[in-house]
Amino acid sequence: MTKPQVVSTVRAMCGIVQAAQRSGQRVGVVPTMGALHDGHLSLVAASRAACDATVVTIFVNPTQFGPNEDFSRYPRTLEADLAKLAAAGADYAFVPDVAEMYPAGATTMVEPGEVAKPLEGQFRPGHFRGVATIVLKLFQAVPADAAFFGQKDYQQQLVVRRMVADLLLPIEIVVCPIVREPDGLAMSSRNVYLSADERHKALSLSRALKAAESLVTQGERDAATIASRMQTTLREAGIESIDYATVVDAQTLAAIDRIDSLAAALIAARVGTTRLIDNAILSVS
Amino acid sequence: MTKPQVVSTVRAMCGIVQAAQRSGQRVGVVPTMGALHDGHLSLVAASRAACDATVVTIFVNPTQFGPNEDFSRYPRTLEADLAKLAAAGADYAFVPDVAEMYPAGATTMVEPGEVAKPLEGQFRPGHFRGVATIVLKLFQAVPADAAFFGQKDYQQQLVVRRMVADLLLPIEIVVCPIVREPDGLAMSSRNVYLSADERHKALSLSRALKAAESLVTQGERDAATIASRMQTTLREAGIESIDYATVVDAQTLAAIDRIDSLAAALIAARVGTTRLIDNAILSVS
Repeated sequence: MTKPQVVSTVRAMCGIVQAAQRSGQRVGVVPTMGALHDGHLSLVAASRAACDATVVTIFVNPTQFGPNEDFSRYPRTLEADLAKLAAAGADYAFVPDVAEMYPAGATTMVEPGEVAKPLEGQFRPGHFRGVATIVLKLFQAVPADAAFFGQKDYQQQLVVRRMVADLLLPIEIVVCPIVREPDGLAMSSRNVYLSADERHKALSLSRALKAAESLVTQGERDAATIASRMQTTLREAGIESIDYATVVDAQTLAAIDRIDSLAAALIAARVGTTRLIDNAILSVS
Repeated sequence: MTKPQVVSTVRAMCGIVQAAQRSGQRVGVVPTMGALHDGHLSLVAASRAACDATVVTIFVNPTQFGPNEDFSRYPRTLEADLAKLAAAGADYAFVPDVAEMYPAGATTMVEPGEVAKPLEGQFRPGHFRGVATIVLKLFQAVPADAAFFGQKDYQQQLVVRRMVADLLLPIEIVVCPIVREPDGLAMSSRNVYLSADERHKALSLSRALKAAESLVTQGERDAATIASRMQTTLREAGIESIDYATVVDAQTLAAIDRIDSLAAALIAARVGTTRLIDNAILSVS
């Protein structure tokens, strides 16, 4: 159990990755905002399985938080994160400060495409602009061969994949399954905000997705019917603030009437003051 | 006089550059839209002087032209361009088609910062968005060590420099002086549009900039006075459609009252239907 080497400057990090690649190594990167949980660690494991060296980035990115969001109180647990990365076998932790990632006067941004507009794009204006910009910057600082993202942030991985394709970025994007608590709650750094009562209510998100999957298994194909069932499940659990609970095209996130092949069931809801997201792929075989 | 190797795919081009770098070579890139003139060739010479291998990109980028601009009639002279590059000693010509640079469904764009907003940003809305996006993509296809731009597109090189700094792109930007015809006209691929009469009128742009430089040499520091002299020079030559003829901060392009250290005199004007730009640095020592 060796500790990961902590690197804080873009120049040093980029040099380490390039040197590794010159010596024939394949490098994987796992971008995170820290507050690491088993979901993140599954990405580290996936990178270690596919690459010779793994870099985990830890950076709470200010530009992806809205003015009324939780940037200042977002959990910051660097020492615990580094211990987890040591146990998980990550080779490097890239931990830049804000000035390193956003040089003075920085105003150039990456404007993501159509797939960023619905859903999170509606409820968190500017969020994916911040995400696309920081991910592109992290790919410059850590010019890895492959990057590992979780399916939990479903629209985010679509935005990142689209950016990589559109801007011709020379990196492979690997998306790994959602990791859940034994009771079904999707792992999230924001789960620490939940009270015991809220945590209980929050189980209705994964329950609603299970209900959607069951309906599809039973032959239901109508998107509105499935969405309605998800919303009922959430409301019955006492969740009143639902941003969306919907069934859309799995690639474009466009509204659909019927599930023909692959759809995504996506939920964003507030439990108390904590906003949670969860999703499931609905596949018709 | 060896012909440059013509490469048309991103994958092949990127592989060639990376292989050259692995073998210890420094690679320079000169992004162009073709219709090459001595201004472009001075950039090739600068790259050859500083690098071991030089790639010239030739791509007429649709996203930087407005709906009423000259995208379709922009001069395309590939055979002549390749002959000039052979004579100039360029090693590679990267000549992708539109589908190669803009994959189907591509909607992610680079949104340049504040420096893109005034001047050209006012008169050519969306222009620098297209420029920043294609330059970033070209830097992925040709991951060179240094890129060479002309001072002629003054605001463009500021936008590119800002993008490289803001997005942490690992490339050095080198800006080379304007190359002029013997009579003072700044070289431009659009000069071929000019009739004999228009070409004569067009000389007033460089004459106005010379007048501005003379005023500064004589001790004039008031930006409005210098701008007024430039506008008078243009109008006296019969140029009626002046987008701007102004003196601004050389780094930010912000309006200034007085020239304290470094300013830029910038002109954009229409001669007949042809829009020309030109500029000069005004330095107070």
